Amino acid sequence: MYDIAIIGGGPAGVSAAINARLLGKNFIWMGSRPTSLKAEKAELVKNYPGLPDATGEELSWAFKQHAESMNIPFSVRAVTGVYETGGKFSVLAGNEETEARTVILCLGVNAQKPVEGEEEFLGRGISYCATCDGMLYRGKTIAVAVYDGQFESEVEFLCEIAGTCYVIPLYKGYKGAPAKGKEIIKAPIKYAGGRRVEEVVFKDGRLAVDGVFVLRPSISYTALVHGLATVGGHIAVDRACATNIPGIFAAGDCTGLPYQYAKAVGEGNVAAHSAAQYLSENKGS
Amino acid sequence: MYDIAIIGGGPAGVSAAINARLLGKNFIWMGSRPTSLKAEKAELVKNYPGLPDATGEELSWAFKQHAESMNIPFSVRAVTGVYETGGKFSVLAGNEETEARTVILCLGVNAQKPVEGEEEFLGRGISYCATCDGMLYRGKTIAVAVYDGQFESEVEFLCEIAGTCYVIPLYKGYKGAPAKGKEIIKAPIKYAGGRRVEEVVFKDGRLAVDGVFVLRPSISYTALVHGLATVGGHIAVDRACATNIPGIFAAGDCTGLPYQYAKAVGEGNVAAHSAAQYLSENKGS
Repeated sequence: MYDIAIIGGGPAGVSAAINARLLGKNFIWMGSRPTSLKAEKAELVKNYPGLPDATGEELSWAFKQHAESMNIPFSVRAVTGVYETGGKFSVLAGNEETEARTVILCLGVNAQKPVEGEEEFLGRGISYCATCDGMLYRGKTIAVAVYDGQFESEVEFLCEIAGTCYVIPLYKGYKGAPAKGKEIIKAPIKYAGGRRVEEVVFKDGRLAVDGVFVLRPSISYTALVHGLATVGGHIAVDRACATNIPGIFAAGDCTGLPYQYAKAVGEGNVAAHSAAQYLSENKGS
Repeated sequence: MYDIAIIGGGPAGVSAAINARLLGKNFIWMGSRPTSLKAEKAELVKNYPGLPDATGEELSWAFKQHAESMNIPFSVRAVTGVYETGGKFSVLAGNEETEARTVILCLGVNAQKPVEGEEEFLGRGISYCATCDGMLYRGKTIAVAVYDGQFESEVEFLCEIAGTCYVIPLYKGYKGAPAKGKEIIKAPIKYAGGRRVEEVVFKDGRLAVDGVFVLRPSISYTALVHGLATVGGHIAVDRACATNIPGIFAAGDCTGLPYQYAKAVGEGNVAAHSAAQYLSENKGS
């Protein structure tokens, strides 16, 4: 079991990882991308002290180099859930489950709002994870709402398993459904059902389904961590970057404005120190 | 009148100044030193993301260069008081008074504890400012408690004015009192008196005085800003780096642990954004 699981490859995550290493903690650092796409795309960052007039790409490179110079590995894993289980946390990413005594969420900004019903039916017919839950739908009818090209192989995997596979692409540059898929080129406005999800609702119609896979690069904070308190669409934290769940900390854009490199890096530092303090105060199994 | 007065030349101050400039604010940046001595003396800083394995001196240089590249001047002025006057603030440094609508305190750690009675008699016979209050003691008996060699000219100035001038050096490398001074080589344990200060108390005796000058490189937060709320010896701030006094913000080591470059820089960024927001919400005279 790890002391700390750091989720997110952006500036806050780098800072948390560097400090976790210097604090002598046994930790894992993971996320869907080793750097933040948003941070990388910044044209010119004039206010990261000490590195004036760097492009987002240059800064991201400098941060990545910093972590590499300390031999800190990054695991590319899209985390789909964080669950508390008896004083420790289980971090799910595809089929992989990682246990840690504390978690630092460096999730960036949630750009995409969940569709109505998405969080309600999560775990009751709606899944964020193709490899985890795909096999449950062998021969059945599923819809796959895809938000990014990185999920192409998951879409193919799901369409191979399912009896009927409706592929709903929701991003630019979509290349077409795999052989066994049926393309639906319109956006869902709601997921509906009773105890479990039963329908994907569009403006002009409905699709009856046994299950829905929602493949997003960023999952909403509350869908990722059940019971996490938010405020104004951000994760609520105190000055120590502690969330409402003891042992879970958060840093960077996910905790609120201003969305800034310096603020993210500062909070990553604070969150790592807070996690270390939590660990020393909560020794045990 | 300035929009913002930023007090402190350390990492938090640099970050606040850079952001105040980018936010288009009319601001002044000042302090007793253009960089933080504590930050500069750091042997090796391994956890400032993007600049791995820099010495404190290298980092301080990089921060200073960053500010200079944006033509942000630093005024060397030892601030002795911040006073609220009708919705704006007056920042006193020696004889100079600066007005600003908001203040960002980047004061670093208060290494020196005030002597008993020091804050109690501040303004009632005890002064932090030789040039401000020296003339009030012409021909009178004063004690000058000096904590740093940088105040040598102030000590000389005071001893020229006073009738009797007890010089109490409280630092290493003291070079001897000026011609008209009398050296007292022991530490005060208390300042005592009635309505005004009357005595400097030592372990083994007392000195009757009309006034006491306390010349410190860092003045306690509450002595500097009357009414400022503190917690555990640090300035109390919320997530926006706002103090209990509307319009006054704080950033860096003065707001509490961890004492870290990244945290200081992050808070300087946040404080500048918060000050800008405060200004836009409190337009007026």
